[in-house]
Formats: sequence, C-alpha cells, structure tokens
Amino acid sequence: MQQTITVGLLGLGTVGSGVIEILRDHQERIQHKTGCAVTIKSALVSDLSKPRDLHGSETTLTDRAEDITRDPEIDVVVEVMGGIDHTLTILLEAIEHGKHIVTANKDLIAQHGAELYEASRKHQTDLYYEASVAGGIPIIRSIMDGLASDRISKMMGIVNGTTNYIMTKMAQEGVDFDSVLKEAQDLGFAEADPTADVDGLDAARKMSILATLGFSMPFQLEDVEVKGIRGISLEDIRYAEELGYRVKLIGVAEHDESGVSVSVEPSLLPIHHPLSSVNDEFNAVYVYGDAVGETMFYGPGAGKLPTATAVVSDLIAVLKNIRLGTTGTANVQPQFPNQLKAKNEKQTKKYIRLQVVDEPGVLNDITHIFSEYGVSFDQVIQRSTEQPDSRELMLMTHLVSDEDIEKAKQDLEQLPSVQAINCIYRVEGGN
Amino acid sequence: MQQTITVGLLGLGTVGSGVIEILRDHQERIQHKTGCAVTIKSALVSDLSKPRDLHGSETTLTDRAEDITRDPEIDVVVEVMGGIDHTLTILLEAIEHGKHIVTANKDLIAQHGAELYEASRKHQTDLYYEASVAGGIPIIRSIMDGLASDRISKMMGIVNGTTNYIMTKMAQEGVDFDSVLKEAQDLGFAEADPTADVDGLDAARKMSILATLGFSMPFQLEDVEVKGIRGISLEDIRYAEELGYRVKLIGVAEHDESGVSVSVEPSLLPIHHPLSSVNDEFNAVYVYGDAVGETMFYGPGAGKLPTATAVVSDLIAVLKNIRLGTTGTANVQPQFPNQLKAKNEKQTKKYIRLQVVDEPGVLNDITHIFSEYGVSFDQVIQRSTEQPDSRELMLMTHLVSDEDIEKAKQDLEQLPSVQAINCIYRVEGGN
Repeated sequence: MQQTITVGLLGLGTVGSGVIEILRDHQERIQHKTGCAVTIKSALVSDLSKPRDLHGSETTLTDRAEDITRDPEIDVVVEVMGGIDHTLTILLEAIEHGKHIVTANKDLIAQHGAELYEASRKHQTDLYYEASVAGGIPIIRSIMDGLASDRISKMMGIVNGTTNYIMTKMAQEGVDFDSVLKEAQDLGFAEADPTADVDGLDAARKMSILATLGFSMPFQLEDVEVKGIRGISLEDIRYAEELGYRVKLIGVAEHDESGVSVSVEPSLLPIHHPLSSVNDEFNAVYVYGDAVGETMFYGPGAGKLPTATAVVSDLIAVLKNIRLGTTGTANVQPQFPNQLKAKNEKQTKKYIRLQVVDEPGVLNDITHIFSEYGVSFDQVIQRSTEQPDSRELMLMTHLVSDEDIEKAKQDLEQLPSVQAINCIYRVEGGN
Repeated sequence: MQQTITVGLLGLGTVGSGVIEILRDHQERIQHKTGCAVTIKSALVSDLSKPRDLHGSETTLTDRAEDITRDPEIDVVVEVMGGIDHTLTILLEAIEHGKHIVTANKDLIAQHGAELYEASRKHQTDLYYEASVAGGIPIIRSIMDGLASDRISKMMGIVNGTTNYIMTKMAQEGVDFDSVLKEAQDLGFAEADPTADVDGLDAARKMSILATLGFSMPFQLEDVEVKGIRGISLEDIRYAEELGYRVKLIGVAEHDESGVSVSVEPSLLPIHHPLSSVNDEFNAVYVYGDAVGETMFYGPGAGKLPTATAVVSDLIAVLKNIRLGTTGTANVQPQFPNQLKAKNEKQTKKYIRLQVVDEPGVLNDITHIFSEYGVSFDQVIQRSTEQPDSRELMLMTHLVSDEDIEKAKQDLEQLPSVQAINCIYRVEGGN
C-alpha cells in the first residue's frame, strides 16, 4: 500500500520554488527511499495575484496561514518564508495542530530554537533545520549522527557566503572593500542592506546553532562575540599573506576545560589550513573531535537548489519517521547547561597593526606596555610608510586574553608616539 | 526504565580496542542520545593468552566465533577483525541468529555487500559500515541521508591514506617513490606488503562501495578500472606543477547519459581544486549533485580512534533503531541495475610524456598519429633532456576516449623516433 504524505509550504520565493522543483524531479527516488509519495497541497504566499511557475504541481495558493496550520490533511509544514516573530507564531500553531516542521530559517532557530524544540517535544512532532546552517552542506546531520560518538572540542566555520565572496575578491584581485561590496550587490550576492552579512550577524546566528548542537548546550545569539569585516584593508590582507596567512571571516566555537567561547571575527588563518582555500561564496565547517581529529565539510552555503536540497533531505527524514512511527524521537534536549566563559577570558593570538612616530625608543615604549600585560611576540615587522615621519608596525602575539589586549590597547592610545591602532585581528593556528 | 544493549566484538586489534575506549569514555553521552546503555559482553580473539588492556571493561574473551554469533543475549555484532571468506561465514551466521551488524571491513563489503545486505533484509536486521570508507569521515551517512534528495552525478575521492602520504612527500620534499615507501613502512603508515595500497586495490574497493550507494546501482570490485602509483616519477610531479596541476591517486565514479564509469588512477588535478590541498594521510570525497553542486567531506581516512568513532556512530544508529523498533528499515536495495559503460568509452583528458629523437619532423609524425584518432591538444611542451640526441614531449589532450588513446599509443610504439612513452595520466578539470 502506497502512503502519501501531504506537505504545506510557507513561502514560495526562491527556495520554495526550488523545493517544488526538486520534489517533482526526484519523486521516484524519494518513493524508493521512503516508501511514500509526497504532495504539496498548499502554499502560503503574500500576494495571490503574482504569477508563479509551480512546475506542474497542483498546489493551491493561499494568503491565510491557518489554511495550512489547521488543515487536518497536512502532515508536514515546510517553512521557507523567513521572518521571526510572525513566523514563530505560525509554526507554533502548526506544531499545536500536530504538524512536523522543516525550516530553513536560521534567524528563527538561533532566536527561538529552544521554544520551537519544546513545543515539538510536547506534541511529539519532528523539527528539522539542516538548511539553516551552510545551505547545501549536511553539517547538522554530520554533527548529530556522523560524529555522535565523539566529543567535539572546536568548530571553525566560514558560514557566510557574501563576506567570503568579498574577502576572496579583495585578496585575489586587490579591490577594496567598498568596491567589492558594490559589485556583490549588483550581482545579487549581497543584499541592498548588507548589515546582517558584513557585520557578522548572519554568521553569528549560525555559530550559535552549531555551538548548541555540537556542545549539547543552549546558546543564544547574545552569547556570540561578533566583529564584522567593514574595517578590513587591502594592506592587512597583503601583510597577512607575507606572514603566511589569509584573512577570512571565521566563526569559532571552542570548548576547553574552562568553558565555551563562541565568536565571529576577521581572523588570520595559515595559508595551508584547509579553510584558507575555501573561496568565493563557498562555505565550510571545520570540526575537531577528541577521537576523530580534524574533519571538514565543504559546499555551497546558499542558493536556490542547494538550500532546497537540504530542505528536501530533512523532509525525507520526516517521511521515514512518519512511516516508521518514530516522529518526535530525533529531538534531543541539550545535555549540559550553557558553560559560556566570560568574553575577556578567551585566549587567542593576535595580529596588530600600528602607525607610530619615526623616533628612537618608540618600539621600546610599545613593547614595554605589552610586556606589562604579559604579552609576548611571535613576529614583529617594522616598515617605512609614505609619510616621512611615520612608520608602520605589525605585531603577531603569542596567546593572550582579550582582556589583556584591551588594556594594552587603552595604554597604547595614551602613548603620544602611537598615531593609530589600525587593527587587531585574531590569529588561528601556527606555532 | 533503562534498556541495555549487549554487543559482541569480533576482533580486538587496534580498532577493536579503540571501540572499547570510546564506549567507556562516552557512555553517558550515548545514554543521553539513545536512552540505552551499552555493554560489550564478549570479544573474539585469535590468541587467548595474549595480554590485553580492556580499559576496565568486563568483556569476556573467546576464541570461538559461535560464542558470539549464537549468544542469545547479544544484540549487535561489531566486526573489526578483517578478512573475507571466514568473516563472511561468521557474519552470515550472526545475521541468521538475528544479530545486527556494524562492520569496518571494506574488503568484505566491496566483495560480499549484496549477500550480507540480502541476509539482513531477510532477517530484518541492521547492517552498517560507515568505517569501511574514509575512516572518520561520515561520507556514507552524508550520501544516504544528507544528499538524499539529490541526484549524484560524480564522486571524486582521495580514499587511500598511504598513497596520499607517499604522493604528498614526493611532491613536497622531492623524494622518489621507493624512498618514501620505505619511510612510510618504517613509520607504520604502509604495510610490509604495500600492494593493496600502492596498486590502488584498497581505493578501488572503497570506490565500488561509494558508487553502489551514490548511484543506487550494484557495483563490484571488478567494475573498477584500477591503476596504481608505482610508476610515478618526480619528473611528472614537477611537470604537472609547471602546468598548474597536482598529481594525486584519485578514485572517480561518474554517471552521465551513456552510463557509469568507476576508476582509480593517478590523475592531474588543478592546483586550486579543493582536493589538491588534501595532504599527507588525509582523505576527502568530493561529491557533485545536480542540485547541490559541489560538496566535499574531508578528514582522517584511517587510524584507531577515527575508525572507532565511525564504528560507534553506526552502533548508536543501531541502538536508536532497536529502541524505536525500526531495525532493518535503513537497508535500501539499489534502485537501478548496474549501468556500467564499456571501459574504453570513458572520455577524459590525458597528460602524456614521451621521449623522442631530436630530429626535424618528429613532432609532426606524432601529432599526425593523434589526429588520426581525433585527439587534439590543449598544451604541448617540448624540452631538451640530458641526452644530447633526445627530447622530451609533454602533451595535454582535450577529451579523448580510452580506446582512442590506447590505439594512438600502439601506433606511437611503432614509430622509430619515439624512444619511450613515459606515462599517460588522466587530467581532471581545467578547460
């Protein structure tokens, strides 16, 4: 006997139309894998009059969410409409009516994941969100299942395609930030308002989702320390190359004896690190497990079909659960309380670029300040600049706490011979 | 109520002892994820008198397989002993007695996967083998679940750590094949008899497993065209670098309109391809899906704890199935018949190095032969050699069938001006 599963779609934009397309193209494959047929009964849209290509599917359009959330025939609600508060209300109502949820909405999961999870647990329904992090890369599934038997100690990710595209173009073509951003906007890679991407918020949401799953502890967006890429100059990219590093916007979630830190910030990565070759709009997540060692998952972070593929893979997982009568069992509550450490306790290496007066004794004054806070250096480069009375100083530190570096920075700002502190970036790896 | 699942272990070598270690270290985590406790009741060893560190586990040792296969208390048999025929017999007996199987044995799965699968299907038991391909990388799970909604068109893998270690050392340190092999053997990275690794058989077994799963068609080891790395010279590695390529032992499984080809052979990869930066003993599998585009999974291909992690992740999947009453449902029979194309139909680009007499008209004679078989060139480099009357010729072709290149090769061998055909290697990517 052939079982048919009925889906309601919230949103019929790029990803929604990709979901319809993939379900049409892979109907047979999905039946083979799950023993179920899938039909998309209805889709929520905001404008009923807009013409749409439904790829031959007999989906009914509606502009009333309750036509989907309360339809007793609908088994699974696929949410690809975006938005937070309004969308949360709709999904909670759907869960109350016993619907399983597949969502691609990272903002929602990062902010209200615990609430959605709690509702799903109560109603024994499924909640899947593979597409919310790193689009087409099955990273959530890999952390949940593939590395289930390991203790994850660190995750490092390039999880925002727009900023990685910008950083790649800056490094490869020597074009400055503003010009590349403009080009990315013209090509449709970057939003008209690029804030969420370039200021690191989008990446921070994804890192809070990964940290919650990887460490089995609840994390919020507020737990993530965030710095964006707006201030990055071509000089720093060039200097980093000379020192053997690439500059990338890297999300890091790290768990050591003293607790967890989660951050997103421009970072210098050794050129031979596998993440350093992740270019253009590609995403990748590097996972360190105590037993497995280093693994990396690489692929497209966004895009219509990659994201839709992740959504449909989740849908297939739900179909299997429905057929086997095991819905609601994949939801595992975090095992531990949040063990976030104070932000300034985090120990990293730093790259610092200063502009200083060209006078005897200046380097000594500066290193004296750093040594007061116990900061020592791995590399120091001093160089003349275009201004005759000014020099540039690049410092790469050994491990140092954010607190000590902040104090040293404040002291440096008081030093008359320091004309500018151009940047302070995290350095990953190396010795 | 706490359910306890009882495991019998076949083999207590490196990986077996890793499994015991991980189960001890992660007992709590596994209970949290699955709601079950796990105990290893007994382990099959060949020498009962050998002292062993059981990491505090109360496992009974036996040298009789039936103590495990017929023990009604044992739910899951974990096979990490290796071997083919004898091991198959033991596992089939275990399945007949209703045991679920987790195995790390690629030789067995490549050769008798269909038979084991058939037995598991009949007895409604689970059969998992994540560790059999690329050790710690959850590649099988990613293909089965993560990319479940996509049509995979091509998989390219560095799936043998020993040969990748050898190729990396040759390229980075300029040491010849024999010396690196000797060093790898001294370090324990390569077996005393390195045949299975350096002649590509180990990689071929893994590619036949990946092709079977990825294309949902049954493939045998015999379907894989295999060339090893014994003949690779430092010259070819250097010339490839000059042309913008790295030489790697690459497994390729490709599915186009005319059918499937599966091969393992030394190949030239563009330097910027993500697989080109996979170094030392690391493994990686590059997957092309119609919808998702390009994804890559990278990690350790072997080693005690990485392999044991994959085994225990499989064990966790079985535990979940037992608890949910869904064992035997993960086994999906191949959807399609084997659509292997004739080996000589495969179209690839080739890199060819020849040694020729230094005389006018020689290049013309050679290109004439190739043009007779419709072979045209992307790059041609001619260079003097240490012998005064001899020149070296490097040719990089456009797409050409193996059949045509073989015929051209036979004609070249008849040409008096051709002193040697040093090598013919596949070229991936580029234009």
